[in-house]
Parts: sequence; C-alpha cells; structure tokens
Amino acid sequence: MRATVMYEAGDVRIESVSDPAIVEPTDAIMRVSRTCICGSDLHPYHQLEPTEEGVRMGHEAIGVVEDVGSSVTSLKKGDLVVMPFASSDGTCVFCHEGLPTACVHRTFFGNPGTDGAQAEAVRIPYADGTLYPLPVDEDDALMPSLLTLADVLGTGHHAAVVAKVAPGKSAAVVGDGGVGLCGVLAAKRLGAEQIILLGRHDDRIALAREFGATDVVRERGDEAIERVRELTGGEGAHSVLECVGYQQAVETAIGIARPGGAVGRVGVPQDLTIPASQTAFFANVTVGGGPAPVRAYIDDLLLDILDGKIEPGRVFDRAVGLDGIPDGYKAMDERESIKVMVKP
Amino acid sequence: MRATVMYEAGDVRIESVSDPAIVEPTDAIMRVSRTCICGSDLHPYHQLEPTEEGVRMGHEAIGVVEDVGSSVTSLKKGDLVVMPFASSDGTCVFCHEGLPTACVHRTFFGNPGTDGAQAEAVRIPYADGTLYPLPVDEDDALMPSLLTLADVLGTGHHAAVVAKVAPGKSAAVVGDGGVGLCGVLAAKRLGAEQIILLGRHDDRIALAREFGATDVVRERGDEAIERVRELTGGEGAHSVLECVGYQQAVETAIGIARPGGAVGRVGVPQDLTIPASQTAFFANVTVGGGPAPVRAYIDDLLLDILDGKIEPGRVFDRAVGLDGIPDGYKAMDERESIKVMVKP
Repeated sequence: MRATVMYEAGDVRIESVSDPAIVEPTDAIMRVSRTCICGSDLHPYHQLEPTEEGVRMGHEAIGVVEDVGSSVTSLKKGDLVVMPFASSDGTCVFCHEGLPTACVHRTFFGNPGTDGAQAEAVRIPYADGTLYPLPVDEDDALMPSLLTLADVLGTGHHAAVVAKVAPGKSAAVVGDGGVGLCGVLAAKRLGAEQIILLGRHDDRIALAREFGATDVVRERGDEAIERVRELTGGEGAHSVLECVGYQQAVETAIGIARPGGAVGRVGVPQDLTIPASQTAFFANVTVGGGPAPVRAYIDDLLLDILDGKIEPGRVFDRAVGLDGIPDGYKAMDERESIKVMVKP
Repeated sequence: MRATVMYEAGDVRIESVSDPAIVEPTDAIMRVSRTCICGSDLHPYHQLEPTEEGVRMGHEAIGVVEDVGSSVTSLKKGDLVVMPFASSDGTCVFCHEGLPTACVHRTFFGNPGTDGAQAEAVRIPYADGTLYPLPVDEDDALMPSLLTLADVLGTGHHAAVVAKVAPGKSAAVVGDGGVGLCGVLAAKRLGAEQIILLGRHDDRIALAREFGATDVVRERGDEAIERVRELTGGEGAHSVLECVGYQQAVETAIGIARPGGAVGRVGVPQDLTIPASQTAFFANVTVGGGPAPVRAYIDDLLLDILDGKIEPGRVFDRAVGLDGIPDGYKAMDERESIKVMVKP
C-alpha cells in the first residue's frame, strides 16, 4: 500500500510500504476513508533530524474495518469507525475513568512501532478499545466533521473542559489553527459568553467568528496580554485554551488568565519548562491539560454533529489525495490552508 | 513598640519601632496575642540581600482589636480576631468569589509598606474585610490551633482542595514542615484513604502519622518518585500537595501524580519555571495553587477546631517571647523545631 513517510524536516514522501496485517489477536486492519494533516505534524516538519528508516505520519482518520483479529468482539468487517490519535485497550483503570490517553497500552499513531494514518490502511492495536463504530454510513457531506472526532474537535473540547469553560464566563483561545478554532466552537458549545481568539490570519478569524468568537486579539506577547485584559474589565479570562504549545503561547495563556482561572493546554509542548510559574502561582491560576481523551468525548460530541448543531469539519479548507500530502504540509506550514483533509 | 526586623540573610533583630496608628478610615490596630514564624520566613532568612531600612517580618497572628478607623463597621475594641497573612477589602469581585488573596486591595503582611506580625501590634488595612472575629475568648489551650487559621492550616487545606483530595483517593504530601503537616491533616479531613508523607524528620513524621499519614517516603528525587509509585500500585497519587516551593519538590510532586491527577502547590516558588512540563502534559496532570484564600476557609475550618475534631496547633512545638524570635528562626532553619509560636 501507499503511506506517508517523513525523512527529515521538510522532506515528506508518499511511498509504497508493506500492507498492514493482523499481528495480535486484538488487532484490526482499517482501510482509511479520510485522514488529515495535524498542526502537530508541523513540529517534525520543522525539527525532524534526518532518519534513514523514516517516520510514518498521520494520526487522525475515519475508515472502514477490513479485517479483525480472533479476539476482537465489537467490530466486524465493513464497520465505519473513528480512529482516535492514540490506541487504548478500553479495559484498564484509566480507560474506565475516561482517560484513554493514559491507557496502560497507549500508543500514539505515527510514533515508532505504530502505523501512521496518512496511508491507505492502518493496523489498529486493541481495536475493541481503540476504534469507535459510527452509527452512520459513509456520507461525503458528514465525513469532514466526523473526521474531527479523531483529534482536532476532541482536543479543542478538552482544552475547554480543562479550562473550566462555563455558561456566562469569558474564554480566551490562544492559537487560530484547527485546534484553536475547534476550541472556540467548544467554548461556545459549553456556554461561554465572551470568546476571545488570539490569532492573526484573516481566513481563520472569519471562521472563528462563525464558530462563536466575540473578540479577536491580533497582538502577541505583552501586547496581547494587555489587550485581553482591556477586553475583560482588567481581570483576564476565566478560561484560557492554549492551542499552540510554544513557550510564548504558554506564557501568554498564563498571563491572560483571571486570578483563580484555569488554563487548558493542548498544544503539544515544544519546550521543557512552563515559564512564569510565579505569575500563575500568585494569581492562583490552574494549568492542566495534555493529550485529549478524544475517544471518551465521542459519545457526547457525535450527537451534536449528527444533529447538525456543530459543523467542525469546516476547519478543512482543502482536500487532496495521498499524492497531495507533501503540498498539504507546505500549505499548512505557510498558513495558506487551515487544515488539509486527505482522501486516500 | 517592639517588632522583628530582618536586615539581611540570617540577621533578625527585635527593635523598637514607632507604634502603629490609624492612617486610613478603614484601618484597625490589632494588639498581637500570638504570632509565629512561617516556613516561608526562612526564604529571606537564607536569601535576603543587605538592606539598611530592614524588612518587618511576620504575617500570621491572632490578636485583639485596639482601635478602629472611622469607617470600620464590623469590629470593635476588644474583639479577638484572626489576622490572615494578606489583607483583603471584603467587597471586590475576588473577595466575593472566595479568593481574597486576589483582592484588588491585597497586601501581604511583612511586605514593604505593610506591618509585620512578629511585633506587639499591627496596623490592619481594610480591617472589615481582613480580620476575622472569633466567637470565643482568649484561651491558652485553644490559641495555637486558632493561630493556624491565619496561614498554615488554611494553606495546607488549600493544597488539598486544589489537589482535589476526595474520599477514598490517595494523596501525597511533599514536605514535612508546618504546611505539609497541615496538608496531611486536611487530606485526612477531606477523606483521603491513603496519605503518603514525603519527609525525613522523625519528629515531623511522628506528628504526621497522628494527623493521618498512612505511609512515609524518606527518599528524595527519582527514588522518591519510584517509592510513591510502588505504594500506589504503580499509578501515582490522585492528589499531590506541594508544600515546599523548591524546584526539586515541584518536580517530585509532578512526577508522583497519577495520570489525570492534580497537584496543589502552596510552597512559595523559589524559582521561575515549572520543570517537567512534558511530564505533566503527557499524564494530563493539573497543576494549580497559590497564596491560599485562608480568610475564606475560616468559616469551615474554625468549626472543626472548636468541636475538637482537629488540633492543628500541635505543629507548634516551641513557644517564645519576642526576644526568642531570632533563636526561633535558627531552630526552624536547623529543623530543631517544626514551628515556633510567639507570645509578644
């Protein structure tokens, strides 16, 4: 089959690789119906050291079950499923507690040893616990929004949950990528009254406003902090969704939080320290978040998609085939596209 | 009157200073019945740069109202009151929300411009909002526990609240000073089933066990992390109370938290970064805390003291007069005393 392999920063290729096969009895093979490029894929796109064997890319997909191992019980060939960005066994204590991204058998798709989703098919470990069977058939109009359940919507939602977004409160979203935009949508859905987007790209800002953003701050750093304070009566935002992961974004997120407020971090951290801990401390600001338990959120979010209440698939503003993936990375990196969907 | 002044690291003196007087109509003057030395007083005791004017020390006290400004309405001469470590106006939005340590008129006692409590008397800004009138008379047996409402008990309680201590869960307390010991007591009071103290001083460990600690870890750093994991079935503690403030303690606190768990920080941070943010992120560990809103906790904690359910005053293992304060700092610094009470 064909799959996406990255060999070093900026070097993304579509190559022939061996077809995935059942290895463990708990495995399934999923043929990919839709996949996409994640903002977090841009981190290796910037930083990956040259590697001879390459890295299989992609961790978001919906697809159709093609084969299942002998001990898989809840799935059968032909099922349309969501593949969350991490595998989970569905049975451990953390899965039971609703945190499948802390599963004792967690692997991240696209990490060494696990297939990437920017491919024609994927071997799925712990298929019963990992894949989420959809109650609908393939439907071109619905597929983009269903695809967001694999990562970007659930991740934006996680930021909002950890940041304690609540009716009548203020929320600020740092970052206008796909996750940030889904964070805006999630904050609106959870009842935030004021939703401030920190971003600077006109197309993303326009979509954010449609998703529910009430204010936009284009400044960065100290100027952004000052501007958010102005917009919130000098107090800062009750909830801050950090959807970037770089140091400046985390500093800004902490700086714009209201005393007693909460920051939900979902941007994959690109540095090893949270600066300004004195700032967070003296304001009693809570900082939480991490890899979103998107599998656990699907029950809730899927209903709103099927009811037409939310349309998170609008974050995809470009669709390509497998061969279009290298250009898709470039387009997202140059901010010519918000998020690229792939139909292999 | 006489007051405690620090001139540089290690140089603590008892000196004659001018008597406090009403400056603003919202002020009160409080004569100090009991005060004490805080673990956080040891930070300037180690680090203070030489200063000609000196720093007035002390921020925990109970005392008797001696005079009130013209606009003070809820207090009168003779009232026995708790003086929390920070002033608060009692009327701003943060005071109404139960976070008086974010009051727009907050000042910390013992900081420049505000009297210290290790003295015969203190000028109290915003007395109506700051002081908490006690429903009892002075009582030698009760005074130590009432004094802990000013900081150390409320601060340990805050760590437990932010760390989401709950019935049946595991809690770990980093630090065996007065705050850590009150953290153990607070965790027990909130129903934690397993309470692990990280400390290494026999006298403190003995008291921690009486306060409810079920396990003790004397190791530090990676060994401590490993040991706590062993004690918690490999998972880590649901709740971690960070009661030190140094970098290693914060790293340990994050390292022993269970995935999805929470760290409540109340140790005043002595460095500017939270290390190991990748660790916290990938485990979805929430890190919160800050200056405890002790004023807001008194309603709740006082009842248990008056009912005899808790006896936090046992953290005081030495009592001195004002002249004994310099030796008190030395004794706490050398871990010969857990916490020193002062009767001016």
